[in-house]
Amino acid sequence: MSKSILEQAPVLANLGQAAITGVTITPVAFKDPPLLNTVGVHEPFALRAIVEVHTDAGVSGVGETYGDEAHLARLQAAARSLPGTDIFNINQLRAKVAAVLAADTSQGGHGMSGMVTGSSTTDRVLSPFDVAALDIQGKLLGRPVSDLLGGAVRETVDFSGYLFYKWAGHPDAEADSWGEALDPQGIVEQARRMVRDYGFTALKLKGGVFEPDQEIAAIKALRAEFPGLPLRLDPNAAWTVETSIRVGRELDGVLEYLEDPTTGIDAMAQVRRAVPMPLATNMCVVSFADVAPAVAAGAVDVILSDHHFWGGLRRSQALAGITDTFGMGLSMHSNSHLGISLAAMVHLAAATPNLDYACDTHWPWKDPEEDVVLPGSLEFKDGAVAVPTLPGLGVELDRGRLEKLHRQYLASGLRSRDDTGYMQRIHTAYELKCPRW
Amino acid sequence: MSKSILEQAPVLANLGQAAITGVTITPVAFKDPPLLNTVGVHEPFALRAIVEVHTDAGVSGVGETYGDEAHLARLQAAARSLPGTDIFNINQLRAKVAAVLAADTSQGGHGMSGMVTGSSTTDRVLSPFDVAALDIQGKLLGRPVSDLLGGAVRETVDFSGYLFYKWAGHPDAEADSWGEALDPQGIVEQARRMVRDYGFTALKLKGGVFEPDQEIAAIKALRAEFPGLPLRLDPNAAWTVETSIRVGRELDGVLEYLEDPTTGIDAMAQVRRAVPMPLATNMCVVSFADVAPAVAAGAVDVILSDHHFWGGLRRSQALAGITDTFGMGLSMHSNSHLGISLAAMVHLAAATPNLDYACDTHWPWKDPEEDVVLPGSLEFKDGAVAVPTLPGLGVELDRGRLEKLHRQYLASGLRSRDDTGYMQRIHTAYELKCPRW
Ligand SMILES: [Mg+2]
Ligand SMILES: [Mg+2]
Repeated sequence: MSKSILEQAPVLANLGQAAITGVTITPVAFKDPPLLNTVGVHEPFALRAIVEVHTDAGVSGVGETYGDEAHLARLQAAARSLPGTDIFNINQLRAKVAAVLAADTSQGGHGMSGMVTGSSTTDRVLSPFDVAALDIQGKLLGRPVSDLLGGAVRETVDFSGYLFYKWAGHPDAEADSWGEALDPQGIVEQARRMVRDYGFTALKLKGGVFEPDQEIAAIKALRAEFPGLPLRLDPNAAWTVETSIRVGRELDGVLEYLEDPTTGIDAMAQVRRAVPMPLATNMCVVSFADVAPAVAAGAVDVILSDHHFWGGLRRSQALAGITDTFGMGLSMHSNSHLGISLAAMVHLAAATPNLDYACDTHWPWKDPEEDVVLPGSLEFKDGAVAVPTLPGLGVELDRGRLEKLHRQYLASGLRSRDDTGYMQRIHTAYELKCPRW
Repeated sequence: MSKSILEQAPVLANLGQAAITGVTITPVAFKDPPLLNTVGVHEPFALRAIVEVHTDAGVSGVGETYGDEAHLARLQAAARSLPGTDIFNINQLRAKVAAVLAADTSQGGHGMSGMVTGSSTTDRVLSPFDVAALDIQGKLLGRPVSDLLGGAVRETVDFSGYLFYKWAGHPDAEADSWGEALDPQGIVEQARRMVRDYGFTALKLKGGVFEPDQEIAAIKALRAEFPGLPLRLDPNAAWTVETSIRVGRELDGVLEYLEDPTTGIDAMAQVRRAVPMPLATNMCVVSFADVAPAVAAGAVDVILSDHHFWGGLRRSQALAGITDTFGMGLSMHSNSHLGISLAAMVHLAAATPNLDYACDTHWPWKDPEEDVVLPGSLEFKDGAVAVPTLPGLGVELDRGRLEKLHRQYLASGLRSRDDTGYMQRIHTAYELKCPRW
C-alpha cells in the first residue's frame, strides 16, 4: 500500500541519502594578544582545528574546534569511523564518535588552558561534526542552520565586549594596537574602544589576574564610565569561598552576574547563598553529568553554554531546554575562535528562545586579516551579529586563508594551549595557584 | 561581500520561504470499545481533531490532537494567528500560540478523561501545529520527520500491548470482537490475542478498576502466562500511599514499572521510597513546570512522554534530554488515537536514543476500517512499527475516510470526553473517587 502514498505525496525535492565520504582536519594557528588570566597568559598564537566533512551528494560542510594535539588525535580517530554515515543522522554520528572514544584514555586536549574541565570527551569531539553535518543539511535543503534548530527568534544576536588585562605586546614583540591594560584605567580605555568599534551593549571582565580589590575597582570604574551597560566579572575560580563572598557583596547592584568566582559545585553553592547577584558558570557545569549535582546543590543561576564542549548545536539546545525547565538563566561561553565558530554560535543563539544574555566572544582580539572563511558574512553592528540567512552556516571556507593559517600553525611550533607554561617562560617565579586569593 | 558567498555556495535546492496560508481543523469521532478505568468507561466514540496546515509552497501537513470542544476552540483561535508564519520557524509558531492563549482562561479540553492534568495549555495547543510543520518540512525537503529530529536510531519502534478491563460491548449494543474482560482470566485471554495478532513483547494493564487484590491477581496471571514479557500496571492514581506501597511490595520482581499508583509528586515520592520497582508517571509530571519539583522530591524513575501535551516533537525531545540528564527512564504515553498520531509517535521514538521502554498505544482498540490516513503505511509486526521513510510523517490524508469520521463526529453528539458521565448514565450510583482504595 505504501506505493500509493509515495505516488500521492507532494514531494518537491527528494534528496535521498547524503553519506559521508571523508573528513579533512586542518590545524591552524592565528595571532593572539597577550591576554592575562588566572592560569597565565595567552601565547602568541591560538590553535584551532578546521573540520571539513565531505559527502557523496557533492556538498561539504565545516566545523571548528580546539586545535590541541590530543584533541586532534581524537578527531582523526573519530573521523575514520564516519564514512558511510547519513549526514542527516546526527544521533548515529554521536554513537560512532562515542564508540571510537570508548577506548580512549588520553588526557587533555580540551583547549581550555588548564582551567578545570570535566567536559565530556565524546561531546567535545562530536561538536565539529555536528556543526558540519548541519551546515551540509542546510546547504542541501537551501535553509540556514537556524531553521534546522527550530527557527530564528531574533534577526541579530547580541554579544558582550570581553575585556582582558593584558600586556602591551608579547615579549620581544611590538606592542599591539590595544596596548597595555594592567589597571582600572587601562580596562576602561579598552572598554571605550570595544564599545566604540563594535557597539557592545554589555561588558565582561576576565578577572583572577590581580588581587580582588584591583578588579573590584576596575568594575566600579566601568560602572562609572558606562552607567547603562550590564557588567560581568569572571575570575575563573581564582578565589576562596570567603573572598568570593566578600567581592560579591562589594559589587552588590553592580554586576549582571558573577562568573565562576570559586571552584566546584559545593563551593559555588556556598557563595551563591551569600551573594546578592546571580552566579554563572562555564567551569563547574561543563557536561550533562554536572547538571543534576549542580541543580541539587543550588550551585548556579546561569549556565554558559558552549557548543564546542556541549556536543554541538543540537545538544546545546537540549541544555537550553534544561536551563529553561529548571529556572536557570542561559548565556554563552567563548574561547579564542574564528568565523566558523562565530557562525555556529550565532545560529544557535538565534534559535534559542531562552537565551537570556549577550554571548561572550573573543572576536575583537583576532586580527581581522586572519580567518578561514571568506570575509563579510559576519559583521558586528551595535554589539550584535546578523543571523546569516544563506543556506547552512552561511560562511564559506577561504582556501587561501586556511592554507596561510595552517602554515602558521606548522611554523609556530605550538601544539597545545599552555598559558601557564608560557607565563613561566617569561616569569620563572610564576606559580599556578587555585585559589589564588 | 555576502554576494560572493552566495555565488560560491553549493546550493542544491533553495526552497525559499514556505509560509502558512491557512489551517483546516476537522473534528472526528471513531468507534471506541467500553474500556474501563478508574474515572469511568470509554464512550462509544473517541474524539480527535485533525489539523491540516497549508502553505504557499503548495504543500500541506497534518497533525492530530484531542477533539474536546474547549480544545477545538483554542486550536481555532491559535490557527487564526498563524498565516504568514515561516513553516521552518517552530519557535515562532510557539510564540504565536502562546500569545493567543495568554488571555485564555477556559477550563478543560485536555482530552484526558478527567484524569489529573496540569499540562501546559500552550504546549497542548502547539503540538499538532508542530507536527504538521515538521510534516511539511519533511515533504519539502524530501526527508522523513525522524531526520529532522536528529536521525532514526532504530528502524522499528516497539509498542506494548495495552490491556483493559472491559465490558463485552456498550449498553444496548452488540458485544465487540474482544468480548468481556472483568477478571484475571479475561485479561489473560485479551493478552493472548494482543500478543498473537500484534506480536507485542511487553504488556500494560490499565488498573484502578477493581480492588487492588484482583488487579494483583491479574498481573500474576499474566506473569504465569507470559514469563518473558515485561509487565506494567497503571491504576491512574486510584490508590492511597498505603495501598500503593502494599501493591508495590506484593508485585516485587513482577513489574517492569508501576505507573501512577497515587496522586501528586509528594505522595509518589513516598511510595517510591518504599517499593522495589521503578515508578513511572504521565500524571504528576505532565509539563516542564512539573519536572523540577519532581526531581527535587525524587518522585519518579520514569516519565512517559507524550507529544500531544509536551508541545510536539521538538519539545518532547527536550524532555528526553532532561530524563537522560537526570538519570530518569523515558517511556511514551498514549490516548485513543488515529494514524497521524501513530506516525508522529514512531518518528519521535525512532529519533530518541534514550527511549528506554516499549511505547503505549491504544491502536488495537481502534476499528481497522476507521482512520483518516490511507491504509498500509503503519503496520504492526512483532509488536513494532517500522519507521516510515517517506518524506514527512509518511502518512497521507484519506479525504473520504476523514469525511466519514467527521460525519460520525457530527452524528455522535459527543463534544467532550466524559468517561465519568457516561458511566453514571449507565450506573447511576457510580461515584468518582480519588483515591478509590
Ligand atoms: Mg568563564
Ligand atoms: Mg498512565
